[in-house]
Amino acid sequence: MLKFPYCNVTDLNQALAQCRFVGLLGPLASRRQSPRAVVSCSPSSSEFSLTPVQAVMSCQQQVGSSLVNRLRLGGLTEDGLSYKEKFIIRGFEVGINKIATIETIANLLQEVGSNHAQSVGFSTDGFGTTPTMRKLHLIWVTARMHIEVYKYPAWRDVIEIETWSQNEGRIGTRRDWILNEVATGEVIGRATSKWVMMNQDTRRMQKVSDDVKEEYLVFCPREPRLAFSEKNNKSLKRIAKLEDPVRYSKLGLKPRRADLDMNQHVNNVTYIGWVLESIPKEIIDTHELQAITLFYRRECQQYDVVDSLTGLELTEGSKTVSVGTNGSATATATTREDDHDCHRFLHLLRLSSDGREISRGRTEWRKKPTR
Amino acid sequence: MLKFPYCNVTDLNQALAQCRFVGLLGPLASRRQSPRAVVSCSPSSSEFSLTPVQAVMSCQQQVGSSLVNRLRLGGLTEDGLSYKEKFIIRGFEVGINKIATIETIANLLQEVGSNHAQSVGFSTDGFGTTPTMRKLHLIWVTARMHIEVYKYPAWRDVIEIETWSQNEGRIGTRRDWILNEVATGEVIGRATSKWVMMNQDTRRMQKVSDDVKEEYLVFCPREPRLAFSEKNNKSLKRIAKLEDPVRYSKLGLKPRRADLDMNQHVNNVTYIGWVLESIPKEIIDTHELQAITLFYRRECQQYDVVDSLTGLELTEGSKTVSVGTNGSATATATTREDDHDCHRFLHLLRLSSDGREISRGRTEWRKKPTR
Repeated sequence: MLKFPYCNVTDLNQALAQCRFVGLLGPLASRRQSPRAVVSCSPSSSEFSLTPVQAVMSCQQQVGSSLVNRLRLGGLTEDGLSYKEKFIIRGFEVGINKIATIETIANLLQEVGSNHAQSVGFSTDGFGTTPTMRKLHLIWVTARMHIEVYKYPAWRDVIEIETWSQNEGRIGTRRDWILNEVATGEVIGRATSKWVMMNQDTRRMQKVSDDVKEEYLVFCPREPRLAFSEKNNKSLKRIAKLEDPVRYSKLGLKPRRADLDMNQHVNNVTYIGWVLESIPKEIIDTHELQAITLFYRRECQQYDVVDSLTGLELTEGSKTVSVGTNGSATATATTREDDHDCHRFLHLLRLSSDGREISRGRTEWRKKPTR
Repeated sequence: MLKFPYCNVTDLNQALAQCRFVGLLGPLASRRQSPRAVVSCSPSSSEFSLTPVQAVMSCQQQVGSSLVNRLRLGGLTEDGLSYKEKFIIRGFEVGINKIATIETIANLLQEVGSNHAQSVGFSTDGFGTTPTMRKLHLIWVTARMHIEVYKYPAWRDVIEIETWSQNEGRIGTRRDWILNEVATGEVIGRATSKWVMMNQDTRRMQKVSDDVKEEYLVFCPREPRLAFSEKNNKSLKRIAKLEDPVRYSKLGLKPRRADLDMNQHVNNVTYIGWVLESIPKEIIDTHELQAITLFYRRECQQYDVVDSLTGLELTEGSKTVSVGTNGSATATATTREDDHDCHRFLHLLRLSSDGREISRGRTEWRKKPTR
């Protein structure tokens, strides 16, 4: 079982707000279509046991005829256990150097997860709960997101993203992604995320019951399928809390109106942007982000003010040390990092008002390639 | 000829920064393909006079085979004089109420303009200058943008945007757009923009010479075709400068890293977001934007700090008055506005440091529809 170091009930009390990703995992929960109804899409299905693929394909004949489904460059894979979609990188999705921003990558991961949910008949309300979950007022909330980008797509490149979800531990599910550059077939990125089930009324985490599992496991790979091999999985690495004084900071960040998503909270892609705000300019100018891990701990509302703190991360053997402005290990860390043209940082997003932690994260940066 | 009230050489000295839209109009300027080369795409074309459509279609056989062109849901219209593309509204493109934000609409206008340029063989470097323009160091810069949205598309709606460009006056060109909801065929929005030609070295506006015109007019409608009829065109309305004290303001807005576009300046869609920041909350909560006009006057760089000012607009007959906090006409204005469930505001974006004007604008808001 994957470790889930500090995401306890109290920490997650308000994690509900990470609604940008809420619902993209919910496996079978269409408002219109119960799991049984999915199977019964096939006229005679109540008499027969259908495979997931048959159930899905049969359902798609009903729901897949809509305009949007016809026009999408995506659909379920042959076995019905994952979903792939192609995207053309648009002009407004690239930044400096004409390459896609990390926010664009995160947005597209969200999009493909959501479209996967829709393609198997999940609810399209942004929550994607199963019927049992809805009955019990349970929802999915994002607890962790980890993205690695090996090569950023450029303006007008076409990428294909595959995604699938599966059970993870007693309280969670997991969604993974693999990003391919279509022209070359090259894997250009991978991502994984963890989701937990929470009671909407008590705001407490709750074990995923067998009832709920039954509802979504039919659409998950039979054997564990992981975008990152477990033995070298940075997404699971413990993230030390940054303590003041930190080396870099950008204080007083405010959500803009466009940062609010359909669930009326600041969407979690904005958090990525806030992390970037406190990365030193000399790194932004010369390096590009190769990996980001974010643990989501608390929601952010429209009128919250946020501080973004960044410190160097020094890795010594298996021990991770965060280094502030007065940390004696700084020089050593810098030397080590420079040796590898790679920089590693730890991040903390907190409410300016009372210092409560919103998110903690970790980023890795490599030298910008010559384009 | 369209009036261009205050966009003089000095005002536009730094307008180069509005690069998000720079180049989306440039008619024929492919780095790889001169106008003559376009015509000569057809083996025997040097002997014959081709129509624009023939020239374009012939060229497309060369450039249209790329992956991205095959996958796009768009292309030139039958006469070759405009371009249409369908877009599915994505989850991250909607805000509260699950409807597309005005920034999304502006982004898609830009995208379709850019794809139009590409489809006729223009340069794909984001500048779209003609060969003559490049020789003379001339570029296009945005001077004005006007968007009206009658009905905002919702998450997963499919919209089709048509765009075309044409000559406008001695110093400018114009690009127009019409937005359709595909499911109903209904026109849900229109937009128009004005572009001027500027010398990249002297930063001075320059008359569009016949040489340059010849290069792009082949791809423009023969007769004037306007998204808005001229006699009732709000896009041309003079916008009074707001003077302090204003009724509403949001000071100290800072660009984020993701606001920088491929031309390394703050992209002009960010300006729209900044205008929205100073709209009073009670309007945002109960109304939706139905029209926005922005005149772009000065670039904005990464480390600039910006003030967004908003005042009520009172229209009396043909006279437009801006009303500050102490304006005696406020009460009358409010009454008039309430009568129509419509609010009109004037906007000013300026540099916090020295008060220099970046952009001035005008917005109209209508009661939110029940969804």
